[in-house]
Amino acid sequence: MRKTIDLNCDMGESFGIYKLGFDDEVIKLVSSVNVACGFHGGDPNTMDYTVAMAKKYGVGVGAHPGFQDLAGFGRRNMDVSRRDLINSIIYQIGALDIFCQKHGTPLRHVKPHGNMNNMADSDKEMATNIVDAVLSVRPDLPILVKPNSQLHLVAKEKGLPFILELFADREYNNDFSLVSRNYEGAVITDPEKVAERVIKMVMEGKVTTFNGEEVEVQGETICVHGDTPTALDLIRVIKQRLESMDIEIAPFSI
Amino acid sequence: MRKTIDLNCDMGESFGIYKLGFDDEVIKLVSSVNVACGFHGGDPNTMDYTVAMAKKYGVGVGAHPGFQDLAGFGRRNMDVSRRDLINSIIYQIGALDIFCQKHGTPLRHVKPHGNMNNMADSDKEMATNIVDAVLSVRPDLPILVKPNSQLHLVAKEKGLPFILELFADREYNNDFSLVSRNYEGAVITDPEKVAERVIKMVMEGKVTTFNGEEVEVQGETICVHGDTPTALDLIRVIKQRLESMDIEIAPFSI
Amino acid sequence: MRKTIDLNCDMGESFGIYKLGFDDEVIKLVSSVNVACGFHGGDPNTMDYTVAMAKKYGVGVGAHPGFQDLAGFGRRNMDVSRRDLINSIIYQIGALDIFCQKHGTPLRHVKPHGNMNNMADSDKEMATNIVDAVLSVRPDLPILVKPNSQLHLVAKEKGLPFILELFADREYNNDFSLVSRNYEGAVITDPEKVAERVIKMVMEGKVTTFNGEEVEVQGETICVHGDTPTALDLIRVIKQRLESMDIEIAPFSI
Amino acid sequence: MRKTIDLNCDMGESFGIYKLGFDDEVIKLVSSVNVACGFHGGDPNTMDYTVAMAKKYGVGVGAHPGFQDLAGFGRRNMDVSRRDLINSIIYQIGALDIFCQKHGTPLRHVKPHGNMNNMADSDKEMATNIVDAVLSVRPDLPILVKPNSQLHLVAKEKGLPFILELFADREYNNDFSLVSRNYEGAVITDPEKVAERVIKMVMEGKVTTFNGEEVEVQGETICVHGDTPTALDLIRVIKQRLESMDIEIAPFSI
Repeated sequence: MRKTIDLNCDMGESFGIYKLGFDDEVIKLVSSVNVACGFHGGDPNTMDYTVAMAKKYGVGVGAHPGFQDLAGFGRRNMDVSRRDLINSIIYQIGALDIFCQKHGTPLRHVKPHGNMNNMADSDKEMATNIVDAVLSVRPDLPILVKPNSQLHLVAKEKGLPFILELFADREYNNDFSLVSRNYEGAVITDPEKVAERVIKMVMEGKVTTFNGEEVEVQGETICVHGDTPTALDLIRVIKQRLESMDIEIAPFSI
Repeated sequence: MRKTIDLNCDMGESFGIYKLGFDDEVIKLVSSVNVACGFHGGDPNTMDYTVAMAKKYGVGVGAHPGFQDLAGFGRRNMDVSRRDLINSIIYQIGALDIFCQKHGTPLRHVKPHGNMNNMADSDKEMATNIVDAVLSVRPDLPILVKPNSQLHLVAKEKGLPFILELFADREYNNDFSLVSRNYEGAVITDPEKVAERVIKMVMEGKVTTFNGEEVEVQGETICVHGDTPTALDLIRVIKQRLESMDIEIAPFSI
Repeated sequence: MRKTIDLNCDMGESFGIYKLGFDDEVIKLVSSVNVACGFHGGDPNTMDYTVAMAKKYGVGVGAHPGFQDLAGFGRRNMDVSRRDLINSIIYQIGALDIFCQKHGTPLRHVKPHGNMNNMADSDKEMATNIVDAVLSVRPDLPILVKPNSQLHLVAKEKGLPFILELFADREYNNDFSLVSRNYEGAVITDPEKVAERVIKMVMEGKVTTFNGEEVEVQGETICVHGDTPTALDLIRVIKQRLESMDIEIAPFSI
Repeated sequence: MRKTIDLNCDMGESFGIYKLGFDDEVIKLVSSVNVACGFHGGDPNTMDYTVAMAKKYGVGVGAHPGFQDLAGFGRRNMDVSRRDLINSIIYQIGALDIFCQKHGTPLRHVKPHGNMNNMADSDKEMATNIVDAVLSVRPDLPILVKPNSQLHLVAKEKGLPFILELFADREYNNDFSLVSRNYEGAVITDPEKVAERVIKMVMEGKVTTFNGEEVEVQGETICVHGDTPTALDLIRVIKQRLESMDIEIAPFSI
């Protein structure tokens, strides 16, 4: 049977006159998109346009809720109360979902954005609030999680469906935490090497960690970035290499 | 058969630390609420709280989308493009609807807020954009309209369900436009007089216009305000008078 | 010679239609105000009005910059970069200063708002960024600091003028940190007791700490709150008691 | 004596992660910049950076206040009250001025942005409010005005210094109003033709209007745009042609 893998990418982060990323190109290369919902980026016009494109290209749509911090693009740690966080996530899911309904394509997943996601790697309270937010309105909606993150563990514990997400261009520690960007070599920039890692993840279910060990991985989606020309090229290389191995790029199963 | 009338009131317009109105009192007196959706006022916490209260008290919930102008509370005319307006209304409806889903109470109507509504009295383009926004996602969702307004005429023409809304404390011209607030006496402040008008509207289907004529009206909901202690008292008098006439205050039928 | 003390209060935190606090009453009771600059609260109209009132009543005006977080009223910890913080503080000082120029009253001090201030109690980096912001544009402008806080120590070290600020309604630890609000009795609510503490601070230069010791204090301004009717009453009692002791309430000297 | 002309360009309109325009290139080509102040675009970091660049390249700095409408980039007509408009302009001027103070370069002018400026062409009330805002805080600060616009006439009447601004790439009617963009040919795109017009304006004090007449003009600054690669090229051609005629590009005299 043919192997498949999902490639997911953040998208729809433009705001008003301000354009971000290469969405029109990226949408043709990936199988799932995490669509900004207007809090850290994105706006109603962009959401409408992005969901329409996703429908057109058969790409899976996910909500990408972020902190209410347009000035910081959701990339600043914020000490948000449980109530504030839960309701702001619900709001953002609802706002995106109606555009999915409009265009006749299902909302398929949730992925927290930026530092909300980063904080939920190790902050159990943040992870709990995120999971409870989704459970309160769409208990069937899978959440994208890093293996062994608090978000993963809490989703598992509370019964929220989750999709394990891998990063092809980031080195892993043996416990599956990401090697900090502060270490040289933590981010892999050589497209061929990144593509090799993706293929190994998909074909063998393994990744070579930063200290050289081979460990087993169970990823159902791989995160790619499309906000720079270089990042876009990287996706193209990955896609080409996957196709040359007869690996299908397709939305994860739910 | 017992007569019934719907009383609707704007609600949920608080934002963060800023509180507005007497929602906890008003919710017990009216039968429908127009809930702010975060653009001109309101925020996710307030939406969650307001919808929960509406569910508790058996009050009908409507979306109250406004211009994206928190600084002006949606009360400044804005020259918004068709695309901007339609998508911002869709977004706001979706954001509120998910809280309705969470609390297990249906989203029952839409009522444009402030100057978006005022502009749609006479601006056919604005009215068309509002109606098209609702039609594109919830063609079954009634919109509250002033009789003979462009919003009324466009909704009728395009087949969007509408609910005729009357103002008990405002004088009408013979063509059912509201007498401008600039005229002395245009706003009726005597609670007894306002209550009399409501009863006449409900029992006889008539209103006395500013120049003294009696004309027929077909209102299914009456707009009341609850943002000042005086306004709150006015609702209480109306409610009391209606009940003394055995008129039931209940959400409009859909 | 007659003793004097400054009472300072946050003010001008209304936003658009949203009103906060009892500014019109408080302004007559205090000698310095910390005016919100539009980021955590406040807006241009409110700034203009507040500065005009301060001029009228001979009250000293200070800038009260906060995090760019209207939804959280600047009361959520935020991990703001040095560059973001410095420039946002400069911006807010400039925005307020021009209203001071317009009304012919000097900008006399800076006091960070909410969690920006709280974080600067113990976070040296935050304190450094705040002090550097003021030094870069107005090295003569005193900053209000809690005794022994990082903000105090950094201001002293870098040569920014500072004014020691005391809290009459909060219990102190022996090292002059505030007793956490989580401890019962940490906040003193009895107006007479609060007034007694103020008088002791002013007349004897001493405060009784939470564990009963008398320690020396050197405060030049005392922070009061005016956002609730109870808080307003508390200021009235303090003022009355101070005047009965012939202590003058007047802006701190610079 | 050598002829000089000022070229002015909007600048500093980036916001957070969102970049707009080619500021680093444009700043080297023009002699005055209109710096966004955070309402329609721009933010404190961008203001700091832009003013620093202007200082470095000897370029004159002006405040470019806009409507408080980031989502619409200040390009939507808004019905703003006199009080709202005046205070929001004062606020923006103050916010920019402090960065000028920080970098030791004077704030030299004001130019309203986008639709605030467009509305002030013909709306005397809008023009009056803008002029009064500047007069209330900086009666010495020149305002950039289109000849014969309401903004021009009101500034003249009220004694606010003004600088006449011409558009090299726009056709003029005989009364010096701009030919609407709806007319074919209203915007001149051929760089050589635009450069010719600039030279004619500078050397002969004349412009050929849309219907072919030569009329006298008295412009002290010429508006150019730098938000697209094509626009940037146009400035380069204009600059080259002006220099080939030994016309100096320099800030207007005040």
